[in-house]
Amino acid sequence: MEYRRMGKTGLQLSVLSFGSWVTFHKQIETNTADTLMGIAYDNGVNFFDNAEVYALGESEKMMGRVLAGKQWDRTSYVLSSKVFFGWRGKQNKPNQTGLSRKHITEACHEALQRLQTSYLDIFFCHRPDKNVPIEEVVWSMNLLIQQGKILYWGTSEWSATEIMEAHLHAQRLHLIGPAVEQPEYNLFQRQKIECDYLQLFNTVGLGTTVWSPLASGLLTGKYNNGIPEQSRLAIQGFEWLKDQKLQQDKLDKVRSLQDVADELNVSLTNLSLAWVISNPHVTTAILGATKGEQLEENLNSLNVLPLLSTEVKAKIDSIVRTKPVLPEF
Amino acid sequence: MEYRRMGKTGLQLSVLSFGSWVTFHKQIETNTADTLMGIAYDNGVNFFDNAEVYALGESEKMMGRVLAGKQWDRTSYVLSSKVFFGWRGKQNKPNQTGLSRKHITEACHEALQRLQTSYLDIFFCHRPDKNVPIEEVVWSMNLLIQQGKILYWGTSEWSATEIMEAHLHAQRLHLIGPAVEQPEYNLFQRQKIECDYLQLFNTVGLGTTVWSPLASGLLTGKYNNGIPEQSRLAIQGFEWLKDQKLQQDKLDKVRSLQDVADELNVSLTNLSLAWVISNPHVTTAILGATKGEQLEENLNSLNVLPLLSTEVKAKIDSIVRTKPVLPEF
Amino acid sequence: MEYRRMGKTGLQLSVLSFGSWVTFHKQIETNTADTLMGIAYDNGVNFFDNAEVYALGESEKMMGRVLAGKQWDRTSYVLSSKVFFGWRGKQNKPNQTGLSRKHITEACHEALQRLQTSYLDIFFCHRPDKNVPIEEVVWSMNLLIQQGKILYWGTSEWSATEIMEAHLHAQRLHLIGPAVEQPEYNLFQRQKIECDYLQLFNTVGLGTTVWSPLASGLLTGKYNNGIPEQSRLAIQGFEWLKDQKLQQDKLDKVRSLQDVADELNVSLTNLSLAWVISNPHVTTAILGATKGEQLEENLNSLNVLPLLSTEVKAKIDSIVRTKPVLPEF
Amino acid sequence: MEYRRMGKTGLQLSVLSFGSWVTFHKQIETNTADTLMGIAYDNGVNFFDNAEVYALGESEKMMGRVLAGKQWDRTSYVLSSKVFFGWRGKQNKPNQTGLSRKHITEACHEALQRLQTSYLDIFFCHRPDKNVPIEEVVWSMNLLIQQGKILYWGTSEWSATEIMEAHLHAQRLHLIGPAVEQPEYNLFQRQKIECDYLQLFNTVGLGTTVWSPLASGLLTGKYNNGIPEQSRLAIQGFEWLKDQKLQQDKLDKVRSLQDVADELNVSLTNLSLAWVISNPHVTTAILGATKGEQLEENLNSLNVLPLLSTEVKAKIDSIVRTKPVLPEF
Repeated sequence: MEYRRMGKTGLQLSVLSFGSWVTFHKQIETNTADTLMGIAYDNGVNFFDNAEVYALGESEKMMGRVLAGKQWDRTSYVLSSKVFFGWRGKQNKPNQTGLSRKHITEACHEALQRLQTSYLDIFFCHRPDKNVPIEEVVWSMNLLIQQGKILYWGTSEWSATEIMEAHLHAQRLHLIGPAVEQPEYNLFQRQKIECDYLQLFNTVGLGTTVWSPLASGLLTGKYNNGIPEQSRLAIQGFEWLKDQKLQQDKLDKVRSLQDVADELNVSLTNLSLAWVISNPHVTTAILGATKGEQLEENLNSLNVLPLLSTEVKAKIDSIVRTKPVLPEF
Repeated sequence: MEYRRMGKTGLQLSVLSFGSWVTFHKQIETNTADTLMGIAYDNGVNFFDNAEVYALGESEKMMGRVLAGKQWDRTSYVLSSKVFFGWRGKQNKPNQTGLSRKHITEACHEALQRLQTSYLDIFFCHRPDKNVPIEEVVWSMNLLIQQGKILYWGTSEWSATEIMEAHLHAQRLHLIGPAVEQPEYNLFQRQKIECDYLQLFNTVGLGTTVWSPLASGLLTGKYNNGIPEQSRLAIQGFEWLKDQKLQQDKLDKVRSLQDVADELNVSLTNLSLAWVISNPHVTTAILGATKGEQLEENLNSLNVLPLLSTEVKAKIDSIVRTKPVLPEF
Repeated sequence: MEYRRMGKTGLQLSVLSFGSWVTFHKQIETNTADTLMGIAYDNGVNFFDNAEVYALGESEKMMGRVLAGKQWDRTSYVLSSKVFFGWRGKQNKPNQTGLSRKHITEACHEALQRLQTSYLDIFFCHRPDKNVPIEEVVWSMNLLIQQGKILYWGTSEWSATEIMEAHLHAQRLHLIGPAVEQPEYNLFQRQKIECDYLQLFNTVGLGTTVWSPLASGLLTGKYNNGIPEQSRLAIQGFEWLKDQKLQQDKLDKVRSLQDVADELNVSLTNLSLAWVISNPHVTTAILGATKGEQLEENLNSLNVLPLLSTEVKAKIDSIVRTKPVLPEF
Repeated sequence: MEYRRMGKTGLQLSVLSFGSWVTFHKQIETNTADTLMGIAYDNGVNFFDNAEVYALGESEKMMGRVLAGKQWDRTSYVLSSKVFFGWRGKQNKPNQTGLSRKHITEACHEALQRLQTSYLDIFFCHRPDKNVPIEEVVWSMNLLIQQGKILYWGTSEWSATEIMEAHLHAQRLHLIGPAVEQPEYNLFQRQKIECDYLQLFNTVGLGTTVWSPLASGLLTGKYNNGIPEQSRLAIQGFEWLKDQKLQQDKLDKVRSLQDVADELNVSLTNLSLAWVISNPHVTTAILGATKGEQLEENLNSLNVLPLLSTEVKAKIDSIVRTKPVLPEF
């Protein structure tokens, strides 16, 4: 396994990591989660990603049960949660979502209970909250750090300007700024990592823990011949992915990428994942496999990384045509 | 129910809320309090207001008992207390009142015990304390925030200058300033909300949790024909309200307001409450009903809110003649 | 009882207070201490002064036992301790005395245990420590405040320059500076209160809790005819007082003061104590009586205070000739 | 015993101290450790030095057992640990070594457990970590100080520039900077103490707790006739010392130093240790004896200190020829 520093911090994350999103509780049972986390851990994965909203709290409870059973040394892995959406779904009341100091504080306490741990390594703001001053968010995260409940804090799907403003308040108030962002990043979603965040990478420093590195499975090639019933795209709640992703155009590109993979004698999945982590601004790509063999295949992408020569990447760019154009000035 | 952000903060309060002042322990028993809080909560009220001095601590104890029984999720409501007057009445010793760091700290510990909770969402300074530097107050509240015992702090009946000075110290010392003020506000008391605090609303931001929106019941019209025995005005300790409020002049105005209400086909109570919350600078108006039907009627004011057209408001102003004159410069 | 704000803070101390110095454990047993503290408390005394070094910790233990028995509300009195000399006497090892962060922290923990309380209201640096940077002292006291173990901190027998330097560091680092000084003050020791500290009173603010208001009993007149065996001056460890205080010159002055007292028809003790608290820069004068009647007489000094006219004070000054000369510029 | 302030701080360390490095668990059993620590403590040694990596945590466990048995007053000694290398040796995973906030925090918690104490007096960064911003290190140490888990923090084998940068961040952020450095210092290793750190000594202040004052035993003269089997140099893991130290050149110098010792009628060990602590920038020299008589002889070096006249030191310099040349500007 390769490990990378999370931005400017001293924290090291395995370049491939494992998240409970979509799969825990919704698709897999505790014993499968146990098997998958065992495979991940044994292969050097040290970052396990969560959020209060995943399966409305059930994902964290499942991961908490698995970790309690494993009895791995707490120092050997990095545990995260995220605050914003709440875990009560349609029963969410005001202050049970968002980034008020009340919800940030209460969400942290609740996540610690569900995960059966006394501190989170990383606590993410799952989305920006336009209704809460970023200064309040910075204060709230720092209070949790001072109280020993979290070690680092980050953002997810925040704009570069919002992240920069958080650092502005942190520097002015002598507090600790956000160290990491969790954006979507894959061959079809490149704007933030490859363009928007560049100034952040070069100034305050920013780690990235990217989600959906396979574009919800699209980049595995498995939808080339239709949507299988057990796949993520067929599960309730992800119908939105259909419209957005399954356009003919994207499927055509995926088929062309398959040709590149075939030439390299690797799977399209491995090619796609290797491409994501070939970007040095990516700290880790979060995997969400539901089966052991699938997870092991994903982890194999590390071996494909050396094959991504300048020529291969150029060929890929010419197929997907998603490379962001940088501003002239 | 409508929810509003408390000033610039991320905390959301129901625009109508419920307080233990006057009523708890003095007028109602625990089982009535239980019924009333149930009605409030079921109607979306999420802010329950208290103070150490209300019924000399007994109000908080009663609310603590009710909340312990209800077992509502602690994250689903916002709980406050206030420090200043102490809860021992004439037995108050030095340092058992006021805003010294000693009393602020000890009053917080005592309120947490009475309310049977581990943190307050909002802790108010119930009055300004001319004998304590505002810097000491800011420090004391921030120490409680750092220790996880309170989440936000505010003031009650402070002047605009005092609130601004608190922010001055907070900004200079890199601490958290007061987020909310609890002033009296109703058709007969408009100076602070409509004039004095305007600059605060526009600069540092300030939520308001207004008390006595019905001018101690005067604006319900129930005193138009004399003071009933069970009413608040007849209860020991509120004689001061008689002189101040029950002047003939005010009663005349109340009767004219009744005509406006009649024209709109709504109750005077609903008109008066709707008028209070029609001011966007009001975060919430605190209700203090003693009977279920009364509380339900009060909560109905939300439905009257859309009827308050510019014309209606102008007519009301011409009757009460209490609109503050803004300074020319 | 009269109460005064401790300098600029909100804390109020009774103008006459009670300390365990010299008397507790050395001269009186727990049951006498219990009686004396009861008299003091019943007469409105709310400040009980201690130090780790008094009777090498035994004074604090005795006061802790008395307070545990009394079950007075913890908010009704102000409890202090002091750090510097340690409590092991000749067995003191390095770091068991002085103002290092180690000793300040450990001395606080130990005082809390001896006094059977969870926080001190005031924690004094019993002397300046020339070997420790004042910045380290300021930090250490602030860490204890942040941890909820003390509420205010002060100094004892520090020079005005040292106190000012402590405020310099506090202001630069955004910390809380010392709020109170405990100097000796009586008709024979006036330099600090009446001259050195004037600038502090006028700028950063400074309360004073003065010790030895009766100059170790000299100003009671009881040594006019020799030293009684049970008196403080005859007790082991206070021989130093003999040389310094019992000069013929001072005894002559005391006899002349007795004439002033006789003219006013008050005791010399009351005149001397009233003179001390007639200075508005004195927050409180600490009493150390060993007998009930003695303490009650001391407390009676409050009634003598109104007799101290400008003329009486001028006569006193002309007798003692100890009034400091202020610098010309 | 002589005690010295640790740099500018108020903490006093015995000029000769005792460490668990190399010896605890590897060379000696708990009962021998108990005997040695008893001798040290009875002779006035008050600083006991540890690190997570010493015997991979076993040294700290042994010292924790000894201290638990001794029941010395916790305030009578100074306990340290160090974070950087981890304690799992080749099993160390990412984040189980280095100076990330995660490892600093977790290493502190683990050291407290092994040493059976609730706070460390000093927590050292055992090495600089080029991959972690020094700002993160400063923050992490200050968070532990604020949480009451450590009292002072320091560095070991950091460059002068790195230490100065730590103070830069501490001053900018209003935090507490590193107070002490633990470098190697002996007659053969003089560059840092006698040249590199001079500016630090003169500005921010810096204590030093030097290790290997006898150059791993070389300066005892015991290797003059070959390496004995039970010596440190023969123990597994210290082979690197052989190449570096046992050059013919050094042995020649050691033999010439033996002549100086003979002239003074003292042992070479005592001469070498006395020379180390004759430098006033040295706060303490850490001893690592394995036998009682050896430790007692080492502690005797204090008596040799007065013999180190200017002439003797000049003679020593002319033999070792290791005195650093200071920069001209």
